[in-house]
Amino acid sequence: MNKIYVTGLGPGAEDQMTIRARKVLEHCPVIIGYTVYIDLIRDLFPGKVFLSTPMRREADRCRMAFEEAEKGQDVAIVCSGDAGIYGMAGLICEIGKEYPQTEIEIVPGLTAASAGAALLGAPLMHDFAVISLSDLLTPWETIETRLRAAAAADFVICLYNPSSKKRADYLNRACRIILEYRDGANVCGIAKNIGREGESVRILSLDQLKDTGTDMFSTVFIGNSRTVELNGRMVTPRGYKDV
Amino acid sequence: MNKIYVTGLGPGAEDQMTIRARKVLEHCPVIIGYTVYIDLIRDLFPGKVFLSTPMRREADRCRMAFEEAEKGQDVAIVCSGDAGIYGMAGLICEIGKEYPQTEIEIVPGLTAASAGAALLGAPLMHDFAVISLSDLLTPWETIETRLRAAAAADFVICLYNPSSKKRADYLNRACRIILEYRDGANVCGIAKNIGREGESVRILSLDQLKDTGTDMFSTVFIGNSRTVELNGRMVTPRGYKDV
Repeated sequence: MNKIYVTGLGPGAEDQMTIRARKVLEHCPVIIGYTVYIDLIRDLFPGKVFLSTPMRREADRCRMAFEEAEKGQDVAIVCSGDAGIYGMAGLICEIGKEYPQTEIEIVPGLTAASAGAALLGAPLMHDFAVISLSDLLTPWETIETRLRAAAAADFVICLYNPSSKKRADYLNRACRIILEYRDGANVCGIAKNIGREGESVRILSLDQLKDTGTDMFSTVFIGNSRTVELNGRMVTPRGYKDV
Repeated sequence: MNKIYVTGLGPGAEDQMTIRARKVLEHCPVIIGYTVYIDLIRDLFPGKVFLSTPMRREADRCRMAFEEAEKGQDVAIVCSGDAGIYGMAGLICEIGKEYPQTEIEIVPGLTAASAGAALLGAPLMHDFAVISLSDLLTPWETIETRLRAAAAADFVICLYNPSSKKRADYLNRACRIILEYRDGANVCGIAKNIGREGESVRILSLDQLKDTGTDMFSTVFIGNSRTVELNGRMVTPRGYKDV
């Protein structure tokens, strides 16, 4: 019985892959993924067959994985970050119904919330909500409802896909919604190109964030009411010191 | 200048550590942590000085790390999961103000949300909220407000610390709150002892979850309105197939 390993690579740097993920990629003769992710790992795993499909052809990429597995070989399908967080794991499970003879294992990876938080300091010490601002697959009304709920209940908020060329003003729209519930001084952070060339972080207020441009390679953190800037780090105290 | 590495070990198994975390532990002569976590890694890193303090003495453990670093050596302070998610990263940043001559690096790890989701299938394909049910450091009213907000806005909900001996009925209380907004058939999952001996998962309805006992080593997932059980897996479709 052949197996598909849905593998999260982590944010980009080889070192942020789990040991398990590396072993899986060493094991599988075929590695499938979106070109940008394949390029991150091509040189690390010589001798592999690397296959790809263009962006947005996620279902095709999944079927390609099952078809390669049916040839009698184990296959890794890779995503950046965690395959289980806005990644390919769900679609593989769904399409897997059509290929009951192929086993599936999800190999988790570091998601941008974890890796970005580590660069900024410690913003996720308390309850948090992860929301994607991409309305490609979700109506904006649903996104807005979630932004309002998370802002009102004082969650730390982590935004994936904060903007893109087509959605240049989405982060601004999200900030304006959150500002209905939060102070303009609310501490926020941006982590950009995590684990890759050009990695950078910035700490700023919610008022400043509203007017800041980001891109697809940025992850945005909006602190809760207790989040502070401390020696250049974004920190949400959990309360240990008070105990 | 000496350095403290606040290092997330991942859920427990050696393989789920990142390559970076392993390199850091190989590098540091002193490794500090709560006894349970030290026991997970003691045999993997022979020749190290392992130091510990009892549970709940988190601030003491942090100061111990800075004092060891002041002796002129690099120190790793370890947590299970991700040091940046309900971990030690925040407290180290706070106490670090007293030790400006010591550098701090946060080394992220796989948190239980990622690792548990991978075992269950793909519950976190869409926006999600992470909430700890421990009221040791958070008033129950705040926890309840967040449960209501997340339930009403149709987030997938991931519960950390769902119960303990002293808080045996907390998961039941949380489920009853969520049931004010959700159907009893809402698909849920429990991941127990992730990456450790006795690892297991269970998929069940919100009605069943309400009357199910868990413990400190369990992570609970409550799907959103679109989450389904698919071939024994908990899957939240993201919508790619509809595109």
